[in-house]
Amino acid sequence: MKKITVITTGGTIEKTYDEYNGALSNQQSIFSKIQATLRLPGIQINQHNVIFKDSLDMDDTDREIILDIARQAMQTSDAIIILHGTDTLELTGSLLYREINTPTCPIIFTGAMRPYEFRDSDASQNVTEALFAAVLVEPGIYVAMHNKLLAFPGVKKDRAKLTFVKE
Amino acid sequence: MKKITVITTGGTIEKTYDEYNGALSNQQSIFSKIQATLRLPGIQINQHNVIFKDSLDMDDTDREIILDIARQAMQTSDAIIILHGTDTLELTGSLLYREINTPTCPIIFTGAMRPYEFRDSDASQNVTEALFAAVLVEPGIYVAMHNKLLAFPGVKKDRAKLTFVKE
Amino acid sequence: MKKITVITTGGTIEKTYDEYNGALSNQQSIFSKIQATLRLPGIQINQHNVIFKDSLDMDDTDREIILDIARQAMQTSDAIIILHGTDTLELTGSLLYREINTPTCPIIFTGAMRPYEFRDSDASQNVTEALFAAVLVEPGIYVAMHNKLLAFPGVKKDRAKLTFVKE
Amino acid sequence: MKKITVITTGGTIEKTYDEYNGALSNQQSIFSKIQATLRLPGIQINQHNVIFKDSLDMDDTDREIILDIARQAMQTSDAIIILHGTDTLELTGSLLYREINTPTCPIIFTGAMRPYEFRDSDASQNVTEALFAAVLVEPGIYVAMHNKLLAFPGVKKDRAKLTFVKE
Repeated sequence: MKKITVITTGGTIEKTYDEYNGALSNQQSIFSKIQATLRLPGIQINQHNVIFKDSLDMDDTDREIILDIARQAMQTSDAIIILHGTDTLELTGSLLYREINTPTCPIIFTGAMRPYEFRDSDASQNVTEALFAAVLVEPGIYVAMHNKLLAFPGVKKDRAKLTFVKE
Repeated sequence: MKKITVITTGGTIEKTYDEYNGALSNQQSIFSKIQATLRLPGIQINQHNVIFKDSLDMDDTDREIILDIARQAMQTSDAIIILHGTDTLELTGSLLYREINTPTCPIIFTGAMRPYEFRDSDASQNVTEALFAAVLVEPGIYVAMHNKLLAFPGVKKDRAKLTFVKE
Repeated sequence: MKKITVITTGGTIEKTYDEYNGALSNQQSIFSKIQATLRLPGIQINQHNVIFKDSLDMDDTDREIILDIARQAMQTSDAIIILHGTDTLELTGSLLYREINTPTCPIIFTGAMRPYEFRDSDASQNVTEALFAAVLVEPGIYVAMHNKLLAFPGVKKDRAKLTFVKE
Repeated sequence: MKKITVITTGGTIEKTYDEYNGALSNQQSIFSKIQATLRLPGIQINQHNVIFKDSLDMDDTDREIILDIARQAMQTSDAIIILHGTDTLELTGSLLYREINTPTCPIIFTGAMRPYEFRDSDASQNVTEALFAAVLVEPGIYVAMHNKLLAFPGVKKDRAKLTFVKE
């Protein structure tokens, strides 16, 4: 049974709707709701909800926290998945690539262009892909999204096509 | 076959998500998406998309437009349904009650506390109820929502309980 | 707060899938799953799961049980909803009409052409309509389905159009 | 842009419900419905609907047809996905392994324990995984299902746990 650590940090994928004020914001993690819809007999998931922010509001301190938790998680995990906002995913991924460089297990970022709470969200697809990459790929730092696995460095969001690409 | 006119005006029920800027706003009607999920063999629906606004942004001119279209629709409809934002539904309903008073067919407002595009939206329930009231009730001006039919005057939103009540 | 008794008897609406043998059958009630998706602040539901059968397999004893429970429920309920298979709904409805005739509260049958467990089921629509009729209509024995409320006697399934009609 | 050939053969994943007779059977492919829910900017899919059968009803002729089409598809595809019933997937996979042995591209079987048309189906997860494996893995003959990628030979259905395992 493989051990996978899931680090949640907010972002579009985790935004939820507040019926009192009509706002869409990061208040809680939605990862366990997605997990409940999937059949995952071969893995054990350990979830850390670390940050609840739109990734445009993340600062260097937030990224250092993610780096620290990823480093610790590497010691006990067969893979690490990081749920992250897409707008600055590139910055956090680049930091991990620079600081960790050769991780001892796959570290896989994912997120979504549309929050999980929406019917037509890409969140379930992307989380399914990140979990599958977690058991398939060599150690490295990646984005899994939209049927693509992209390895850092050189990964960035294509803001016109709303997906990730390699430079 | 009963003829039902559906007037859409925006509001929470019709808010949609823009993946480019992350905003939730009124750009188009979602009524036909709900209609496509329902079995309605006994009615014929004529849809008018009139306003695309959060109801907090509606002004007197908007309400006059709704009043005019409802008046015209009465001449050819067995019932009228108005999709409306919940925050000022009370104002538009009160205007129609004051100006039309004794309509020749049921005029039924509905809306939602959570946009239709969300998995856990109350939009489908409320539209199903409004369509059912349209074939069941006597002429009058009503809100159909959350398994309740409330007749104007004296209908208002309970902002703590997020539902409509009679004063 | 109105008191509604829900009597479940199986039928297509309640069929569930067994992954071991690939069969679709009546093993349990799905009513509470539908209830959990609806907003029903004005009613209190008391649920009795009485029979778990395809309605083609119901016999006179089954129909007598439904009649007895409906009779008892009338004493403490503001309305009664009966989930029933569509193939013999007409028989059970006719029995109740003949034996009870003038009920003290609305007794509303509903069901579905496609089991609730399917994405495109009409179950949620029909249950929403039955619950709404429960708070709106005069005492009587009805079917609520597909945006129609039909009063016994003379209600039957249109097997070509897959909906209920009045003779 | 990678070219992926999808061969559909029926099985549980593709069973659909007939409202006239209440039967669940293989009448058409559901693959394009799943495809419409996924974001797949990096691939081009060529779909062949070959067989419409519960895999317990497949015979040697059916398996030879699948083998022939897979052989042809290898010449123009970067990967092949085969939707197949789980009960005899092992037999078809073993045939392809024996006859093709070292394919020129990944050949990935998938299916589901619950038909796609059901709300709680594992079909979307499994197809997402098969499509992701199609762009990630080395040539070989595999099953992708439930967050596992299993290579033939020695793959079989665990009928107690309702998933695939390696002997």
